[in-house]
Amino acid sequence: MTIAQQHSIDHKQSIGEWINWLADYGKTEDGGVTRLLYSESWKQAQLSLQQVMIQNGFAVRFDEVGNLFARYAGTAEPGSIILTGSHIDTVQNGGKFDGAYGVLASLIAAHQLYVQHGPPKKTIEVVSLAEEEGSRFPFTFWGSKWITGQSTLAEARELVDSDGISLQQAMVDAGFGEPIPQAEVKESIDAFIELHIEQGILLEKKQKDVGIVSDIVGQRRYTVQFTGESNHAGTTPMSMRKDALRLAAEFITYITDQSEQLDPSLVATIGRLSVSPNMPNVIAGGVECSLDVRHADSELLDQFEDIVDQFMQTAKQKKMEMQLDCWLKIEPVHLSDRHVEIAYKQAEALGLSYEKMVSGAGHDAQVFGATCPTTLLFVPSKNGISHSPEEWTDTAALEKGVELLKSQLYALAYE
Amino acid sequence: MTIAQQHSIDHKQSIGEWINWLADYGKTEDGGVTRLLYSESWKQAQLSLQQVMIQNGFAVRFDEVGNLFARYAGTAEPGSIILTGSHIDTVQNGGKFDGAYGVLASLIAAHQLYVQHGPPKKTIEVVSLAEEEGSRFPFTFWGSKWITGQSTLAEARELVDSDGISLQQAMVDAGFGEPIPQAEVKESIDAFIELHIEQGILLEKKQKDVGIVSDIVGQRRYTVQFTGESNHAGTTPMSMRKDALRLAAEFITYITDQSEQLDPSLVATIGRLSVSPNMPNVIAGGVECSLDVRHADSELLDQFEDIVDQFMQTAKQKKMEMQLDCWLKIEPVHLSDRHVEIAYKQAEALGLSYEKMVSGAGHDAQVFGATCPTTLLFVPSKNGISHSPEEWTDTAALEKGVELLKSQLYALAYE
Repeated sequence: MTIAQQHSIDHKQSIGEWINWLADYGKTEDGGVTRLLYSESWKQAQLSLQQVMIQNGFAVRFDEVGNLFARYAGTAEPGSIILTGSHIDTVQNGGKFDGAYGVLASLIAAHQLYVQHGPPKKTIEVVSLAEEEGSRFPFTFWGSKWITGQSTLAEARELVDSDGISLQQAMVDAGFGEPIPQAEVKESIDAFIELHIEQGILLEKKQKDVGIVSDIVGQRRYTVQFTGESNHAGTTPMSMRKDALRLAAEFITYITDQSEQLDPSLVATIGRLSVSPNMPNVIAGGVECSLDVRHADSELLDQFEDIVDQFMQTAKQKKMEMQLDCWLKIEPVHLSDRHVEIAYKQAEALGLSYEKMVSGAGHDAQVFGATCPTTLLFVPSKNGISHSPEEWTDTAALEKGVELLKSQLYALAYE
Repeated sequence: MTIAQQHSIDHKQSIGEWINWLADYGKTEDGGVTRLLYSESWKQAQLSLQQVMIQNGFAVRFDEVGNLFARYAGTAEPGSIILTGSHIDTVQNGGKFDGAYGVLASLIAAHQLYVQHGPPKKTIEVVSLAEEEGSRFPFTFWGSKWITGQSTLAEARELVDSDGISLQQAMVDAGFGEPIPQAEVKESIDAFIELHIEQGILLEKKQKDVGIVSDIVGQRRYTVQFTGESNHAGTTPMSMRKDALRLAAEFITYITDQSEQLDPSLVATIGRLSVSPNMPNVIAGGVECSLDVRHADSELLDQFEDIVDQFMQTAKQKKMEMQLDCWLKIEPVHLSDRHVEIAYKQAEALGLSYEKMVSGAGHDAQVFGATCPTTLLFVPSKNGISHSPEEWTDTAALEKGVELLKSQLYALAYE
């Protein structure tokens, strides 16, 4: 029996069917998926994936923190790794496709290439990353940050979930946390390729098969506080009010208008807002809101911060207080121009329509992108919905992504 | 011993001291007062007031629902009642002055007149109204509405508080609820006079001793709902968004600007607002907010409603939905011009500075004002604060109100 014949990934089983299979681990009542880091459903999903990998001739290993790797060793340059994959964890009651698609597509693509062309020249390694979402512990990209050395256990292990369980404890309970000896041969990740659903409506609106990502936006998140004076809604004339909600409303209008004027690809979102004391007949004395700003150019984010700062003057004129606190700052990542170029040519060769685009969402690709040439490919998301049981992409659309991923893997590992 | 000598309201005890005495019933940790309708603290306050009334020579009675009356019978027209007072109940952790001041000031004023001038020609009756605030049951002005026949037990008794106790049950538990035989002599309320703290900052800002109220505003309360589309804050370009919070912010700015332009005495308040799903990285799909609008002219309130309706067009242009639901409509009440005229002259005679004003808050006077000539008098509230332990008026200022109330009572019951 040849290695090819041993492989049991059934070619008749579509990527859509594979996704449904994985979605059973952590399935929620309304058809969503909850697979939080190191939870039972997360563990069962990783172990089941491990079985599939073994059955399909991959050399399989877990690392210390629970990232799962499946390898077809390279014949010419075994120490040069072309890594491909995505994350296995989900948000609370998230969708079936976010992360899972990239893991399964990578397995299918690597396997089909192996069946068709035999072992690659460089090592192809599929990774099912332990964590990306930050849904259980207040920490994102744990899997990719661990692999690239951008985070250490010392940084992460004290973090606790909403039940007070530490990341360290959860990791040990799931069977990880033991140091793993390094491979004797010096290895390096030559490239990373991630295939993901878009989680936006651009590809659908433009009717494109795939998105080829040139940049992942930088993000800044702020908490904005407005302090006015709580007063009786009936007895305080409009001219004597210090209405914090009226000020916050002006801010929201100003900020969203300004973001449109500054650059069409800048996004500014006020998604969370709370009013104090929040009673119909009392003028708002305080408002706290979030502000999430994203763009691929950090200079533009600086400019935007200046615009936000300018609004402080408006608050002062109205004799109210405004405080701005930046609590998250993620720099933009520019992905490999060479990889993007390859992906264009391949998409054309495959007859796929494509869009060069910026990713407004964060992805593991941005973590790898800071350390090695990286590709991020998208397929459309129905109605742009994500992080919801409603998340959906048709199997035919998913398959187009797999085709492009295969081409990219072939170019990097076989040529 | 003369009747005057029997009276035990000590002239050396100031109105401020009387207010502190009553504030002990339902005193809260931070110096506020909680006296909800038919609660133990409410009952003890009414019973203690009853004792003071009896000790001061008043003829005392409770009515079926717990309103407490203290009477000096008129010598010439005993069936013509000049009623004066306010309410005994408070909001949760409210102030000492709201309501209580009017009850105690009325007792002091009536008693001092009696001591000085003997029995009145018309009957003076002081009332400690059972309920005004609507803090326990979802029903306001229960005391005055019962007296004026504007509400019946059938309407009110099924209402339940937050513990599921019905108003009927609470009333019976407090010792009320039994029908009381009507007086054989035909009686009628000739006039109602209420003295109250302003609960606003106008008198303080204008440095006036007293406010003489010509009108009590009409109120309309709405719930406004904006429906957009919840989407990813990173992947949805600004131009493709249906951001319900951005729309709500425009609405708040528009509505508050319009109210200032329409009439300087119109007030429009958005005090309560909630966002859905209320997450920093998700565009708001829904916003619900309150809208409280008040003015003394109901035509202006109609005009304002038209302005609010016009905003629906903005929502439509942005392909979002907006719903407006008016759930409370209280008509404005114009108080007795004759009483107002008397009060001006008396304030001048007493050397008090005064302001003719509109009450932006609701008061029992508006309920009586719909059925008999009514006076509503205000004293300043420090910083306009009310419904809070911070509520405050200096005793000297409170006393000026008592003087004006005495003059008004004298004019109506003795002349």
